[in-house]
Amino acid sequence: MLILMEAGHEEKQLEAVIEKVRSLGFKAHVIPGAQNVAVGVTGNNAAIDPRLFEGMPGVADAIPVTKPYKLAGRDFKRGETEIRVGGVVLGGYDFVVIAGPCAVESEEQTLRIARAVKKAGAHLLRGGAYKPRTSPYAFQGLGEEGLKILAAARAEVGLPIVTEVLDQRSLDAVAATADVLQVGARNMQNFALLKDLGKIHKPVMLKRGLSATLEEWLQSAEYILAEGNPDVFLCERGVRTFADHARNTLDLNVVPAIQELSHLPIFVDPSHATGLRRRVTPMARAAAAAGAHGVMVEVHDQPQHALCDGPQALSPDEFGHLMDDLDKLCRAIGKQLAPQPAATAASRTKSHR
Amino acid sequence: MLILMEAGHEEKQLEAVIEKVRSLGFKAHVIPGAQNVAVGVTGNNAAIDPRLFEGMPGVADAIPVTKPYKLAGRDFKRGETEIRVGGVVLGGYDFVVIAGPCAVESEEQTLRIARAVKKAGAHLLRGGAYKPRTSPYAFQGLGEEGLKILAAARAEVGLPIVTEVLDQRSLDAVAATADVLQVGARNMQNFALLKDLGKIHKPVMLKRGLSATLEEWLQSAEYILAEGNPDVFLCERGVRTFADHARNTLDLNVVPAIQELSHLPIFVDPSHATGLRRRVTPMARAAAAAGAHGVMVEVHDQPQHALCDGPQALSPDEFGHLMDDLDKLCRAIGKQLAPQPAATAASRTKSHR
Amino acid sequence: MLILMEAGHEEKQLEAVIEKVRSLGFKAHVIPGAQNVAVGVTGNNAAIDPRLFEGMPGVADAIPVTKPYKLAGRDFKRGETEIRVGGVVLGGYDFVVIAGPCAVESEEQTLRIARAVKKAGAHLLRGGAYKPRTSPYAFQGLGEEGLKILAAARAEVGLPIVTEVLDQRSLDAVAATADVLQVGARNMQNFALLKDLGKIHKPVMLKRGLSATLEEWLQSAEYILAEGNPDVFLCERGVRTFADHARNTLDLNVVPAIQELSHLPIFVDPSHATGLRRRVTPMARAAAAAGAHGVMVEVHDQPQHALCDGPQALSPDEFGHLMDDLDKLCRAIGKQLAPQPAATAASRTKSHR
Amino acid sequence: MLILMEAGHEEKQLEAVIEKVRSLGFKAHVIPGAQNVAVGVTGNNAAIDPRLFEGMPGVADAIPVTKPYKLAGRDFKRGETEIRVGGVVLGGYDFVVIAGPCAVESEEQTLRIARAVKKAGAHLLRGGAYKPRTSPYAFQGLGEEGLKILAAARAEVGLPIVTEVLDQRSLDAVAATADVLQVGARNMQNFALLKDLGKIHKPVMLKRGLSATLEEWLQSAEYILAEGNPDVFLCERGVRTFADHARNTLDLNVVPAIQELSHLPIFVDPSHATGLRRRVTPMARAAAAAGAHGVMVEVHDQPQHALCDGPQALSPDEFGHLMDDLDKLCRAIGKQLAPQPAATAASRTKSHR
Repeated sequence: MLILMEAGHEEKQLEAVIEKVRSLGFKAHVIPGAQNVAVGVTGNNAAIDPRLFEGMPGVADAIPVTKPYKLAGRDFKRGETEIRVGGVVLGGYDFVVIAGPCAVESEEQTLRIARAVKKAGAHLLRGGAYKPRTSPYAFQGLGEEGLKILAAARAEVGLPIVTEVLDQRSLDAVAATADVLQVGARNMQNFALLKDLGKIHKPVMLKRGLSATLEEWLQSAEYILAEGNPDVFLCERGVRTFADHARNTLDLNVVPAIQELSHLPIFVDPSHATGLRRRVTPMARAAAAAGAHGVMVEVHDQPQHALCDGPQALSPDEFGHLMDDLDKLCRAIGKQLAPQPAATAASRTKSHR
Repeated sequence: MLILMEAGHEEKQLEAVIEKVRSLGFKAHVIPGAQNVAVGVTGNNAAIDPRLFEGMPGVADAIPVTKPYKLAGRDFKRGETEIRVGGVVLGGYDFVVIAGPCAVESEEQTLRIARAVKKAGAHLLRGGAYKPRTSPYAFQGLGEEGLKILAAARAEVGLPIVTEVLDQRSLDAVAATADVLQVGARNMQNFALLKDLGKIHKPVMLKRGLSATLEEWLQSAEYILAEGNPDVFLCERGVRTFADHARNTLDLNVVPAIQELSHLPIFVDPSHATGLRRRVTPMARAAAAAGAHGVMVEVHDQPQHALCDGPQALSPDEFGHLMDDLDKLCRAIGKQLAPQPAATAASRTKSHR
Repeated sequence: MLILMEAGHEEKQLEAVIEKVRSLGFKAHVIPGAQNVAVGVTGNNAAIDPRLFEGMPGVADAIPVTKPYKLAGRDFKRGETEIRVGGVVLGGYDFVVIAGPCAVESEEQTLRIARAVKKAGAHLLRGGAYKPRTSPYAFQGLGEEGLKILAAARAEVGLPIVTEVLDQRSLDAVAATADVLQVGARNMQNFALLKDLGKIHKPVMLKRGLSATLEEWLQSAEYILAEGNPDVFLCERGVRTFADHARNTLDLNVVPAIQELSHLPIFVDPSHATGLRRRVTPMARAAAAAGAHGVMVEVHDQPQHALCDGPQALSPDEFGHLMDDLDKLCRAIGKQLAPQPAATAASRTKSHR
Repeated sequence: MLILMEAGHEEKQLEAVIEKVRSLGFKAHVIPGAQNVAVGVTGNNAAIDPRLFEGMPGVADAIPVTKPYKLAGRDFKRGETEIRVGGVVLGGYDFVVIAGPCAVESEEQTLRIARAVKKAGAHLLRGGAYKPRTSPYAFQGLGEEGLKILAAARAEVGLPIVTEVLDQRSLDAVAATADVLQVGARNMQNFALLKDLGKIHKPVMLKRGLSATLEEWLQSAEYILAEGNPDVFLCERGVRTFADHARNTLDLNVVPAIQELSHLPIFVDPSHATGLRRRVTPMARAAAAAGAHGVMVEVHDQPQHALCDGPQALSPDEFGHLMDDLDKLCRAIGKQLAPQPAATAASRTKSHR
């Protein structure tokens, strides 16, 4: 924390600031300046609310300098977090692709698409059983039935499952089935849910909130980490801005920015970021070129009949072409696509149950 | 829905669009134009996802024209929703002031502040027992103990209680004590929580999300209304923009905009919108002048020791001056401050228990 | 400037920072901390670009602490800037209303509206002769002919004229006629134009850019002040955000924020901020309640035929009601409407011709 | 234009709308609906201001459907605009790299950097002689002296010159020297300057404004095209949002969006978009992968002493590595780097002097 005094402040105002710093148990360092006197604060282990000082007479500004997260930051852990899911490593050197339908609509639909994305080279299968919808009148997902369908798809194609957890009540059911639990953008600051996710032993994919700063995002990750679950990865899915030419504004610059500050893997979701099929491929390629650890892409074989977000779903053919592009792009920047999971332990185990 | 065809589209593309409209059970009306042919869609009872058509060959754009909410809109209810809470009417002609500390910190603190705001003319008492905090290391509220303190304050000063509900797990406890349940900005699209709030019989104050459009906000209200709870009112608390001179950007223009579209009462929270005490009074006055039904203001008698948001809390003296200002301003625009609740039934009952 | 070293930086990295500070002619103050070492920089007379240090090895962050403007700030001038225009004081205690059509369309139209706003109590007459239009195909204003019409209106009704200057080429012509030169939002950072405006002897109204921070706005004012013209006032007209329920998002919080940092008068334009007639009155009232020095409002007696922005123009009747409201509101907060200018020298001269 | 009537509108209100449409010279098509009646408007050759109708009694909304630009759109020209500059084609299949210092600081500095970027494979040389600066106290560029230095650099290394034109007054001087005239973000809606640029015979690079929508950007291009200059290309350089982890938010999604709507080439400036050297390379690679026609990158061999934006400049070595990356990335997506211009006429002429 650095506290800046106003030009022309009174001596006793400065003394009051110093006294307050000390009363909070910290040390005050007065820094004289040509125009402004400043007071450096040290001795704190966590961020101090700058507004504790901003309201004091004679204070011009108070600027925090300690990062408000700890476990998510590079100061805490110098290496990279690698998360193993059914034989796939997320956050390592290899590029990982999560693909599947927006929503689980039926067993047939899910199996068809699961087979198609498996064949094209996807590493994990996504699909929503519980769907957060802006309107109460929109399709809300198949719920537990959807989870069963996802388990069946995993058993057949051998890809680990990524699916969204919407609330505390369905958390146990989702955690019993999913290999990765997804927290959606609208729940990024559902702190009660985050705490519960910190107590389970499954990886969590934390999507960025619609208007979340990087610091808020990492603090939400910190909620999960602080409860004991180290397997958190992040997913940029576009933010809300004035721009109206796309569903959201994809903020790819966040990829290197996260990598500077945090050891957590960072993925990109070009489907929600663009909202339109024809822009998904360019943005998925851009995400790979920017250095993301992977992408999550929506695929549907009958997008015109999809119950949710059909217009942003790639066809299996388009997805196949994208996988080819990503393969070449990864090699061009010295990386490679991750190997697909073998007929995995998970699917083998499953089939033996 | 209006579907615009591209200049130079093929006839069979137009036919495919018409066929698709019909397959969805709607009527298609072709509108010829000098530059563009358009297709009007009628017969739908709810909004249609424009992207159902945007992906089709030859389609330039698809524009929704039906509002995506129903119960919250003026088409459904022509009059105004008035909500009665312990003798106070929210949403009527009189201006209502909700005041109290950001967080319940102790019984002494809460009672002192409750007496002060009652004396200055407040109509409802606010105070957080469960606090949503960006950082997992910040004070998270007293929980159930805080609810007991709020009940004690109500019993003594006779003001109805407004307090936040954070998650489904604590909903029953909060609903048993609170007179009004507050949904915070970060929970505006916690749809599971909204549905649960639709099933209780207490008024709900729904704060606007950090980057919520007006339509999204009304659809979140619709989640509550659709489950059977008609007593919802809205609270603007500032949105997130590029502007960095305040904690949030207070969007007062939303006050007349909501009043055009919806019958639900609209309040303003100038404390969170500004984040700084010295700007709370100007913005509270502006809210009244803009026609809001009321304001919610944070008050603390020892803001320098507040565990939460002290810098934005008015002192009891400052709050008293604000009440004087609001009294004069309301009269200037032909309104008036609501009468304070008498030593209410609630408080009288309580004291007899 | 405060420079924060990374945790685990090397000693020689810190020395390099200190050396660089000194090489720039400043003093370096090392501030030891539990987690971070910081270096305070003093001795500079103007803001230092933080990125001079952000790129250095071992540096975590560099935070500017000196304000980037000087003449516009309260450190430079403790009182308030009051600007006298044809007998009206802008920036003083009295509330000032500027009104008139968006664009000068004809002499008849301008005179009719000028008479109407004069009669209703306006203090200055606005009207655009040169119009900045997003589309090259939209009405671009009458140009010099429009300036002549404005001069004629001033001669008849005796109100000083506010009109926009679009570019350097027409500056002399505008300055020869206008009493106040308006810089539009899209020109707020047209630095060449700002410098030229600093060399004339007429007051300048500087509108806020569509996405200008408060610091950028004051630096643009500084461009004018630094060239020798002290008569600058500011006008908030809404900013661009994600919100789509209004033409712009009116940021009334900027009114107290500007008053904290600067001695320049601050006005509000509710017409461009809302874009819709029915919201102009609530927002104009809110601006007065927030403490603005005045408002600028568009008025048209035949808005359905206006060549520019008709939908946001008040009718003369509506404007009359607004003046009544503002009169009452100003009194309610201890202020008052400014007295109208007497029949001015200009208008008296005119009547003798 | 589609005009939506309110539910419950009166018959005569609908008639008034129809009458108004006809009075404007257009045709009105009534579209009956279950909930809403709509009126389609045809016969107009340009966009109609929706607010002409929004203010009318009984009207719920008015939605424009004609694009507000013409020459910049694909309806006007089906192929792609290719711009030839000194032997380099912009907007074709090959990827083009513009590189050089932010500002021309001296002849030595400019020549050193020009040689370095030429050697590394750049196609055009950038450098600012006139600099738009937020603060009036910052370095404003060398002006005409800077233009002479750029001409000397072109003569020696044979790369065409891209430099910014700040205002009308220096336009002739800039146009006499530059091969491409750059319009900066803050001037994107300096309409007077745009009109002047439409009358010269040099290519113009139009950067996107800080908060410009895609439609506004294309309309600004239309200002230049409409005056007769067809050689306009666009440059995305990041927009202003709430996100604070980068100087601007790079909106790469605009690349495919522009390519859908317009035939004008689209470039990306990762230097201004990120503001930090270490993020320039990832974002330049992402731009290529997204399908941009080229990038513009700032390079400085002594960034710590740069007078402008040193922290975002790549070193010549870093730029060399970026060129290698771009070469591989372009091949991975089936494109290639453009060939460098041969020793041009200009440079050959120079060597004969």
